[in-house]
Amino acid sequence: MRVLTINCGSSTLKFGLFESEGERFLVRGAVDRIGGSGGNVEIYSERGEKTVRPASAGDHIWAALLVMRQLDRCGLLDGVGAVGHRIVHGGARFSGPALLDPAALKGIEALGKLAPLHNRPALAAIRAVREALGPEIPQVAAFDTAFHRTMPHVARLFALPRRFADEGVVRYGFHGLSYEYVVGELRRLDPEAAAGRVVIAHLGNGASMAAVREGVGVDTTMGFTPSGGLVMGTRPGDLDPGVILHLLRSMDPGALRELVNRESGLLGVSGTSADMRDLLERVAEDPRAAEAVALFCYAAKKSLGSLAAALGGLDTLVFTGGIGEHASAVRWRICEGLEFLGIRLDPERNAQNAPVVSRDGEPVAVHVIPADEDLTIARHTYKLARFTSQEGA
Amino acid sequence: MRVLTINCGSSTLKFGLFESEGERFLVRGAVDRIGGSGGNVEIYSERGEKTVRPASAGDHIWAALLVMRQLDRCGLLDGVGAVGHRIVHGGARFSGPALLDPAALKGIEALGKLAPLHNRPALAAIRAVREALGPEIPQVAAFDTAFHRTMPHVARLFALPRRFADEGVVRYGFHGLSYEYVVGELRRLDPEAAAGRVVIAHLGNGASMAAVREGVGVDTTMGFTPSGGLVMGTRPGDLDPGVILHLLRSMDPGALRELVNRESGLLGVSGTSADMRDLLERVAEDPRAAEAVALFCYAAKKSLGSLAAALGGLDTLVFTGGIGEHASAVRWRICEGLEFLGIRLDPERNAQNAPVVSRDGEPVAVHVIPADEDLTIARHTYKLARFTSQEGA
Repeated sequence: MRVLTINCGSSTLKFGLFESEGERFLVRGAVDRIGGSGGNVEIYSERGEKTVRPASAGDHIWAALLVMRQLDRCGLLDGVGAVGHRIVHGGARFSGPALLDPAALKGIEALGKLAPLHNRPALAAIRAVREALGPEIPQVAAFDTAFHRTMPHVARLFALPRRFADEGVVRYGFHGLSYEYVVGELRRLDPEAAAGRVVIAHLGNGASMAAVREGVGVDTTMGFTPSGGLVMGTRPGDLDPGVILHLLRSMDPGALRELVNRESGLLGVSGTSADMRDLLERVAEDPRAAEAVALFCYAAKKSLGSLAAALGGLDTLVFTGGIGEHASAVRWRICEGLEFLGIRLDPERNAQNAPVVSRDGEPVAVHVIPADEDLTIARHTYKLARFTSQEGA
Repeated sequence: MRVLTINCGSSTLKFGLFESEGERFLVRGAVDRIGGSGGNVEIYSERGEKTVRPASAGDHIWAALLVMRQLDRCGLLDGVGAVGHRIVHGGARFSGPALLDPAALKGIEALGKLAPLHNRPALAAIRAVREALGPEIPQVAAFDTAFHRTMPHVARLFALPRRFADEGVVRYGFHGLSYEYVVGELRRLDPEAAAGRVVIAHLGNGASMAAVREGVGVDTTMGFTPSGGLVMGTRPGDLDPGVILHLLRSMDPGALRELVNRESGLLGVSGTSADMRDLLERVAEDPRAAEAVALFCYAAKKSLGSLAAALGGLDTLVFTGGIGEHASAVRWRICEGLEFLGIRLDPERNAQNAPVVSRDGEPVAVHVIPADEDLTIARHTYKLARFTSQEGA
C-alpha cells in the first residue's frame, strides 16, 4: 500500500508518496504561494530528480487537486491506499493520530473556535482528497499538538482565571510531528540519550523548543497558538500582556492579529526580511539585521535555560528545522556561554552541520537531525489505515 | 536633615522618616485600602512601638496629607528637609533619581501615555506634599525602572516591528529600588559575590527577577509594564499573544485590562486568594490552591534557568520581598532540581529563613535579604537634596 501525505502551511502544501510501511518515499514535493501569483509545484523523486513547474493554486483545495493530477500523470496515484494529513491543532480532544471518520472531522471542525486560523487549510485538502479519490480511501489526521499531551498539568496552565483553562485556553504546544520524528531518530542513533533529558530546538520560520524526558514531552515554548514562545520569522513569541494592551490603544484586534502573526519577529526587528539566511548574509553591514539575529538567538538561549531548569539539567540538545539544521552561526550563538550547562560546540563540526556538533567528552551531546514531519505522518497513516482495512476485512 | 519617603502602591501608601544620611529611620508606616473603606494608618517606631488607627483615605492625596498630619502631631514633621517618592515608571528618560523640578515633573507626566496607570498615585502624593510643606522643600523621584537602564539592547527589545521600540515599547523592568538595595546589601555582606553573576528574585504580590553581573542589571523578567514576566498575585506574567487575541473575542480591552491586572495569577488559578500565605496553608486540602502555588514556583524556576543562561551561569541567588523572605516552601520548590546549576538548599536554614539558606560549599550561595526600597529612596533623596541645598547656598 502507498500512502500520500499532505502537509498544509498557510500558503504552502507539501506532499509525499510513501511505501514500505511509510519508510520509503517515491516522490515528495510542494506547491507554494497558494492564494497568490507566481507559484510553482516542485517534485523530486527518490533518486534526486527534480522538476519545477509554474502552478497557480487559488486555495488549498486547488493545490491538493493539482498535486493529485500531477501524481496521476506519472502513474503514481493508483496505488494510493490511504492519505495522511498534518493537522496543526488537536485541542484537548486528540492525543494521538485519528482516522478521519465523520466524528473526527466534526471534532476538528469544532476546534475552529479555539484555533480559527490553523486547521482550515488542512480541512480543505481533506475535502479535495475525498472528492478526487472517493470516500473509500481512508484519511488520517496527525496532530502537531499530540506529542505534548503528556505534559504535566503545571506546564499546561496559564496563570489566568481557571474558567479559561476549563474552556480550553491552555498550553498545547506545536511542531509535535517534528518532535516525534526527532525522538525516534535519537532513539535509533543513541538509545541511552533518548532515555535521558533532551531539549529539541525546532528552528524554522516557525520555531519552538520542547523539553523531553525519557522520550516524553514535559514542556514546550509554544502555547495556545503558534504565536508564543520563541522569536520567529514573523511572530514575536511570548510577550508582556501589557504590551498587547498598549498596542490596543492604537489598533483594533484585527490589525493586532496581523501584527502578531505576520509583521513581528525577525521581519519586524530587521525591517526587511523574515528569512534567517538573508539576515545572516547582511549581519556585517546592516545593524538592524544584526539586531534581529541577536534577538532570535538570545530568546532561544534563554528558553533553552528555562527548559533545562524544567528538566533538572540536560543530557542532549538537538537542533532541527531549516535554521536549526543549516544556520551554524545561529547554533553557535545560542550555545555560546552555556558551558555551565555542559554544552560546548566543536567549531569545525558546527560549521559543517555535522550530525553531532558538540565536542567529544562534553556532558551534553548536541545533535543536528534533519526534520521529517511527513515521514511521521506516513507512519501514522500506514498504521491506522492498515488497522482499518483489517477491521473491514 | 530628615527625609520623608513616600511609596505609593495602587491602594496603599508606605512612608518612612529617615535621618543620618538616610541610614536610620525614626518611624515608618503605611496607609492601606486607599479609595476603599475599613482602612488603617499604621505607624511603628525605631524602637518597635506600633500604633494602628482607623483611617479612611479617599485617594493618595488624602493619604499623604493624613500621614503628614500624623507626623506633625508627633512633632516629627518640622525637621523634614526633603521628601523622596518611588515612581514606578521612568521610561527612557530617567536613568537615575531626579530632583522634582518642573521639567522632571513634566517628564513624569509625559510618561502617562506609556504608563497611564503606574505613576498617577505618586504624582498625587507629590502635589499633596507641595501643598502641605511648600515648594521650598525639595522633592526627589526614585524610579523603579532606573536600575535596569544598563541592560544591553538585546535584552530590552521585543520582537515587534521596530517603530514600536522607537515609540518606547521596550522592556523597562521594575522593582529596581529593591534590586538596588539588595545589590548594596550583598556588596556589604560579600563583596566578591556582588562582583559575580547574581540572580535576585523579588517575590511579593508583584514579582520579578533580575540578572545582575558585577552589580549591573543585564536582564529582568518584567517588561514594558508590571504585568509581564513571572506569575504574580493577580497578574499572569508573560503570555502567548495568541491567548490575548483569543480573549479579545469575548471581552473588550477594558475588561481584559482588569483581567490581566487584578484577576489572574495566584488569584485566578486558585479561585480564592492572591495571598501566598493563605494558599500555602490550604495546599493540602485545596487542589486549586496547590495548583496556584505549583504554577508560581514552576514559572519562577524556569525564569531562574533562563536568567542563568543569560548570565552564562550563576554564582549567587538572592530571595527578597514578602514571599521571597518568608515562604520557605516556595524557595524550596523553586530551587528543587536545580542542583545542575549549583543550587542546593539546606533544609534547616531554609525553614528558618536564615540569611544564607544554601548548604556550605555549594557552587551557588543562596541568600535571603529583606527588601527595603524605602531606604534606597531615602539615600537618593538625601544625596540629591543635599546637593541642591549646597547649590542654593
